[in-house]
Amino acid sequence: MEDLAPKKIIALMSGTSCDSIDAGLCEVMPDLSCRLISGINYRYPEHIRAKIFQIFSDHASIKDVCQMNFAIGKCFAEACKVLISEFGKPDFISSHGQTIYHYPFDEKLDNISLKSTLQIGDSSVISYETGCPVISNFREADIAACGQGAPLVCFADEKWFNGKNAAIQNIGGIANVTVVSKEHETFGFDTGPGNMMIDYCMNKFYGKSYDKDGKIALSGSVCESWLDCLMQDEYYFKNPPKSTGREYFTSNYIENALKFAPENPADIIATVTALTAKTIASAYERFIYPDIDIDEAIIGGGGAYNTAIMKFLRAYLPKHIALKTHEDYGISNNFKEVMAFAVLGYCTYYNIPNNLPSCTGAERRVVLGKLTNC
Amino acid sequence: MEDLAPKKIIALMSGTSCDSIDAGLCEVMPDLSCRLISGINYRYPEHIRAKIFQIFSDHASIKDVCQMNFAIGKCFAEACKVLISEFGKPDFISSHGQTIYHYPFDEKLDNISLKSTLQIGDSSVISYETGCPVISNFREADIAACGQGAPLVCFADEKWFNGKNAAIQNIGGIANVTVVSKEHETFGFDTGPGNMMIDYCMNKFYGKSYDKDGKIALSGSVCESWLDCLMQDEYYFKNPPKSTGREYFTSNYIENALKFAPENPADIIATVTALTAKTIASAYERFIYPDIDIDEAIIGGGGAYNTAIMKFLRAYLPKHIALKTHEDYGISNNFKEVMAFAVLGYCTYYNIPNNLPSCTGAERRVVLGKLTNC
Repeated sequence: MEDLAPKKIIALMSGTSCDSIDAGLCEVMPDLSCRLISGINYRYPEHIRAKIFQIFSDHASIKDVCQMNFAIGKCFAEACKVLISEFGKPDFISSHGQTIYHYPFDEKLDNISLKSTLQIGDSSVISYETGCPVISNFREADIAACGQGAPLVCFADEKWFNGKNAAIQNIGGIANVTVVSKEHETFGFDTGPGNMMIDYCMNKFYGKSYDKDGKIALSGSVCESWLDCLMQDEYYFKNPPKSTGREYFTSNYIENALKFAPENPADIIATVTALTAKTIASAYERFIYPDIDIDEAIIGGGGAYNTAIMKFLRAYLPKHIALKTHEDYGISNNFKEVMAFAVLGYCTYYNIPNNLPSCTGAERRVVLGKLTNC
Repeated sequence: MEDLAPKKIIALMSGTSCDSIDAGLCEVMPDLSCRLISGINYRYPEHIRAKIFQIFSDHASIKDVCQMNFAIGKCFAEACKVLISEFGKPDFISSHGQTIYHYPFDEKLDNISLKSTLQIGDSSVISYETGCPVISNFREADIAACGQGAPLVCFADEKWFNGKNAAIQNIGGIANVTVVSKEHETFGFDTGPGNMMIDYCMNKFYGKSYDKDGKIALSGSVCESWLDCLMQDEYYFKNPPKSTGREYFTSNYIENALKFAPENPADIIATVTALTAKTIASAYERFIYPDIDIDEAIIGGGGAYNTAIMKFLRAYLPKHIALKTHEDYGISNNFKEVMAFAVLGYCTYYNIPNNLPSCTGAERRVVLGKLTNC
């Protein structure tokens, strides 16, 4: 094997909330530690973003998917160019892409598994536009190996939080946790909606894209009966490994839930915010505490900036568990996933298997991703 | 650069007619000559094939695309396994995939090009299932370089028919030509429908998937007025570089054309068969003869076995042009495209640029494809 060397990598991620492309120039070391040199949020142009939401709502054609794969590739490339113009070319680019569908279920057709996932933002476009090699499409190989294709960030969490007994909790559009401990194999799963339902309701009732600092949630009251009702969803009861996404928590899903909501919009925001925290806490009770004593819950993602989520988490989590954010460990809350994909790309580059079967359910370790260098 | 060595490659192709996956074990030499060791047609399972046609007719969802990318990847892997069980593992696999959309037009959204193409049959699934490296997704990089992403086979034609003055004519679902000559740069384009309209009408009027040996066409009479009308389509008048596909010659397109068809089904088959030959001959008149004196037209693809197409071609082409098939040059008519993708994959493996900008319209030469090795 080639000797491992430090690599400068631009990592690219666009999550389920799809407000912008997160692009981070990172330096990854042979021990898989990762330093963020610079991170930016590159906003999708208006009509591209609208088209992505059209795809999410399944009011889109095959032609739209075909075209948006290239158009989003171009946006990803533009995000890279912002960083390249300031810092020069990286050794390579590691791109997660934009998820437009994720179907980790065991359905079959002609006895062939339909378990699948679809990330767009074509790597050839990124490679051509930037002149850099691109590693992309990480989730497919894990699904090929009969895994869920998610969560993948656990791999980086295991390296970074090695030696702790902790729940590493990311709160993006969807919320996912990695559990690291000294005695037990690392595992992880999606706990449920992160900011997705909050953002949807903020848009519907306030015409805003999110609840900045959780202020609206803090101004309302939680409707306990509605919250109890929301907590009954079968996803929360399912045993890991499990992953979820917009395909499950659809606009329809949220609209149906809203039929039973309180009248006051601030109470609605407060309750769906509490839902995010309570599904996290109940997932820990069901799937972590029986096996592992954790000392800390370390929160990252946009949700770490939502004071209401943090307040509810403090209330719902057992008192002996310290509540921290990624920033407490020198890892950007905003660019944590980006940094994780820099590490995943680094491993793919050197042919190091980089899925964690204990997290994804895959039948074995594989090297994720595809290399494009046009 | 690594020294070039002969490589055993399984190449995979599924064309627009989508009846089966063509899989060929090839040996490619450093001079890019290619020997077919063994070729098979692997039939898609029934419901998978029906789902692909649903996708073609745009009555499919994003979920279908997501799932079929994996299911078709599995079918491609199964096709490989048939060859691997007899001949052992190849050095790598080169997969064209199944085209489900091709949009080589200069439309824009937010000032971003929507030129695009979409091949499915996920490479990670093929790699995981076979344990071989996979090179795939060749068309994207050419489109990223502002080309049409097609035709790509010209690259192999140029190597194989070097020194001739010839039109290398493939007749698959779509018909495409490569023009090689001593004086002029190689160029190529799609001439129009190949077997696609014939197959559609055979299915509609005879419940058969194709007109074996052109027997039905030979039993009917060409309706000259309908043929003249069909020849007026604007695609045939467009200057190369140009490419087309099912997105243009849709079922709707054919159904509309059939409104003006003669009554006798055999006459319909005869006329659409003549259309394939006549659009080829008129494309030569418009776009080849003004610049290049060709001595031969060398036919490949399923159309080479259709006696009626060959008869019409002989009638429509100038008498001094010899009409031959690929078999006359020791290249399988059936597996010619597969062999071409073995050569394209070989070049990608060694980082040799493998698009021909004179054929695709790309602004420069690039290395096509992506490498997956899980």
